[in-house]
Amino acid sequence: MVAVELSKIIIDEKRQDQIIVLKEKAGDRQFPIVIGFLEASSIQMRIAGVAASRPLTHDLILTMIKTVDAQMESLVIDKMIENTFHAKIYLRLKDGITKIIDCRPSDGIALAVRTEAPIFVDDDVMQHAVVFK
Amino acid sequence: MVAVELSKIIIDEKRQDQIIVLKEKAGDRQFPIVIGFLEASSIQMRIAGVAASRPLTHDLILTMIKTVDAQMESLVIDKMIENTFHAKIYLRLKDGITKIIDCRPSDGIALAVRTEAPIFVDDDVMQHAVVFK
Repeated sequence: MVAVELSKIIIDEKRQDQIIVLKEKAGDRQFPIVIGFLEASSIQMRIAGVAASRPLTHDLILTMIKTVDAQMESLVIDKMIENTFHAKIYLRLKDGITKIIDCRPSDGIALAVRTEAPIFVDDDVMQHAVVFK
Repeated sequence: MVAVELSKIIIDEKRQDQIIVLKEKAGDRQFPIVIGFLEASSIQMRIAGVAASRPLTHDLILTMIKTVDAQMESLVIDKMIENTFHAKIYLRLKDGITKIIDCRPSDGIALAVRTEAPIFVDDDVMQHAVVFK
């Protein structure tokens, strides 16, 4: 597993698909993920500290997680299937049990920036992603 | 409180804002709510029984609710402030306690169609909405 962090969000309002870039924490490798406009906006608004007048969908998820006394432990981008990244949210429940929930990386990252949960990428995925330095 | 159901989704792919119509269950009153394209698509895909190749954000919320053994009891559209509808999700936790979570009606309805939770509208809101028969 490689610990990564969000390094760039490239939003082009004329396009539906947007690009975010994840960067290795202990190195220079970076790779892009194509995500939807709404998810990109949701990530950017949180990072920019812009409060939406009404809760965005990811804010709602965050409220739900807090309401049930759970905690997002981490996000793991663990697979790439037909050029699509797959991810898992590790959710620690009130009773201490950790459950693993399948998600798109975009949703996972929108939650990770809200919970400050660490983001990891599987070594194999890192090797197969379009990595640049 | 007035029990309502989703009666129409009007999707215009050239626009960002879409319209859904809620209809009184025990009567003929209906009113429109303007929601985002993504939320409208999420509602329509579920109703049409179209499975997304990867979980949509509302599918992720549903999985989270199930994972923590909670249950969506109902959605209540309880306020209209400056022409914006506000809503609450009533979430019954594993221990039997019901928590109330603030949300946009669009997210609430996208979850209600996935959980078959009933939808209610406050009488005052119903009177102030642009109602047609």
